[in-house]
Amino acid sequence: MSFCRLGAWSTHAFVRRLLRLGRSMLASIACSVVHEPANPRPDFWYSYGNVKKRAELRRLVLFEATNPECGWSMGFNQRLNFTAQLVESRLSGLLDGVGRAGAPERLVAAMRHATLAGGKRLRPFLLIETASLFDVPTESAATAAAAIELVHCYSLIHDDLPAMDNDDLRRGRPTVHKAFDEWTAILAGDALLTLAFEVLAGGVPTGPAVNLAMVASLARAAGAAGMVGGQCLDLEADKLGLPPRPDAAHVARLQAMKTAALIRCACELGAILGQARPEEQRALETYGARLGVAFQIADDLLDVEGAATVMGKAARKDAAKATLNAVGGIGLAKERLAELAADAVACLARFGDKADVLRDAIAFTVERER
Amino acid sequence: MSFCRLGAWSTHAFVRRLLRLGRSMLASIACSVVHEPANPRPDFWYSYGNVKKRAELRRLVLFEATNPECGWSMGFNQRLNFTAQLVESRLSGLLDGVGRAGAPERLVAAMRHATLAGGKRLRPFLLIETASLFDVPTESAATAAAAIELVHCYSLIHDDLPAMDNDDLRRGRPTVHKAFDEWTAILAGDALLTLAFEVLAGGVPTGPAVNLAMVASLARAAGAAGMVGGQCLDLEADKLGLPPRPDAAHVARLQAMKTAALIRCACELGAILGQARPEEQRALETYGARLGVAFQIADDLLDVEGAATVMGKAARKDAAKATLNAVGGIGLAKERLAELAADAVACLARFGDKADVLRDAIAFTVERER
Repeated sequence: MSFCRLGAWSTHAFVRRLLRLGRSMLASIACSVVHEPANPRPDFWYSYGNVKKRAELRRLVLFEATNPECGWSMGFNQRLNFTAQLVESRLSGLLDGVGRAGAPERLVAAMRHATLAGGKRLRPFLLIETASLFDVPTESAATAAAAIELVHCYSLIHDDLPAMDNDDLRRGRPTVHKAFDEWTAILAGDALLTLAFEVLAGGVPTGPAVNLAMVASLARAAGAAGMVGGQCLDLEADKLGLPPRPDAAHVARLQAMKTAALIRCACELGAILGQARPEEQRALETYGARLGVAFQIADDLLDVEGAATVMGKAARKDAAKATLNAVGGIGLAKERLAELAADAVACLARFGDKADVLRDAIAFTVERER
Repeated sequence: MSFCRLGAWSTHAFVRRLLRLGRSMLASIACSVVHEPANPRPDFWYSYGNVKKRAELRRLVLFEATNPECGWSMGFNQRLNFTAQLVESRLSGLLDGVGRAGAPERLVAAMRHATLAGGKRLRPFLLIETASLFDVPTESAATAAAAIELVHCYSLIHDDLPAMDNDDLRRGRPTVHKAFDEWTAILAGDALLTLAFEVLAGGVPTGPAVNLAMVASLARAAGAAGMVGGQCLDLEADKLGLPPRPDAAHVARLQAMKTAALIRCACELGAILGQARPEEQRALETYGARLGVAFQIADDLLDVEGAATVMGKAARKDAAKATLNAVGGIGLAKERLAELAADAVACLARFGDKADVLRDAIAFTVERER
């Protein structure tokens, strides 16, 4: 799909539909982007929310065009890629801001190395798609999406450290402590985690109660009773052999914290942004929790079955860890994966066709190759 | 000063003054605490804000009794000690909560080791005292004070790591990576930082706009353009010899970020909690910034002149670092210290006698022995 194709199509339907949806500012920008005026009014590019970059605006317009209500649909993978580009651009802008605020160059370079290395951007995608169930503009959701991705990226830096998983390779590139050094990696992780909360506290124009609820949710999910706690349980198994004989319940606790807490949180943040009703929020949280555990089980299966060249990281690294494969065998893991997928689908019943992208995300998670 | 002494005194003046100040709930609790009823109504202990522990309530009542408006004064050191006890108790309660929420025992133990090891609690003290300029109840300020102390404690864990300053001793006890191991120390630091934002987002009953402003302020101060950035500059000097010839301006930038950003933030949080006018907030931020740099210079002087036994950590550890002593000599450092103290005093002019404790804090910072 090229930008030109949208250009040809836009004057017919897209802009009119945006106007009908009350998104007049975006419609004007769409016209402006599509028609490529030789001499655009510079203030125009600064007038839509926080978006300051022309390139990011284009992506945003294209992404909004894929909203089913605009009458133009796009495949799951295209939509996932668009979100990834949008979030990458937002993250880059946030890190530019950190440099401008006076952070040391070395630190910003390490933060960029860890953050702008591509990746699926699954958590941001889930946040944006969950929020869009409630018609939250992609632009607003993208800032919160960048915040949760910052937390994910920090966790990868620290997990890769020699004292932790000791990985040299991440997404096919040297890990931060390899590209820089250990102390820079520790500090870059600390700085990304802190930045996530600065972003959530500042960047989303929905009113302080919504922002504060997002801060609380992200802190709970990322903290000692969430992601960090899960990483601790994982390393207790790996380094200390504790518990001596982990059972399926222990593995379930570990997975719910280590991986699923943040994926669940992505859906929770989308629901908070969308000011969902309590029962809707609960359904989306459960969806995220099931999807998150499925993601980890699929990851563990990939580790057993996948090849390092496809995965971009060393396969079979995790063989000593407490996984469902190790505890109950590959058969049990695959069975559990199917159960979780069915549970996740069931959570979406109340949202009708609008949740089709979230349904596709389940298949994507269960069947992915890396 | 014993609890009994307050008991004898309270029926005469303290409770009546509390009532006159409109603090009727606290006055009732004070009566109850003082009279030690054999069979207190249990719900009574749960009715004042977030305070759930009888021991903490007692401290709170005693602390409020030292409010000059209650007509009972207390020396600076006593007041500092009371705050330290109050914050220690609040931190302990918060970490109990983390355990109850499902965090792994090992992680909670490491977090407790790092957090409940005593210390001056200077940042919480400054926050509480700044907030009290605007009559913020100590109880409300204590939660925010605990949050900033969590950030300070996390920074100490990570700074002490082998890849960073490689310290074995902190406040006279083994550092976290010595008492546990490196991976536990990294995760405990991560968890404390995350908890600080959870606490700020949840625990202070002043309305979401105030809480959100505090989250933003703490994240800015602790992040890449604040404390973490300062630590990066410090290690660039120490490990990489960069810049090759640091000048006084470089040292000033480093100190403003590494140490002063968080001390300044303590005063900013107090002003935000107190809903200070912008010019009042600016004055208190400048006070905090000056005090923070003075604190670091005094620390560097102690490192040159102090003894390990008094300081509870290895002295002269920092000899290779970029300090004002190293750049301009001890004479310049002492001169700068006097200037900063005078600047800090000047910032307090508008607050009259109410700011006497903050004035004492300057002398305490400049003249301290550890």
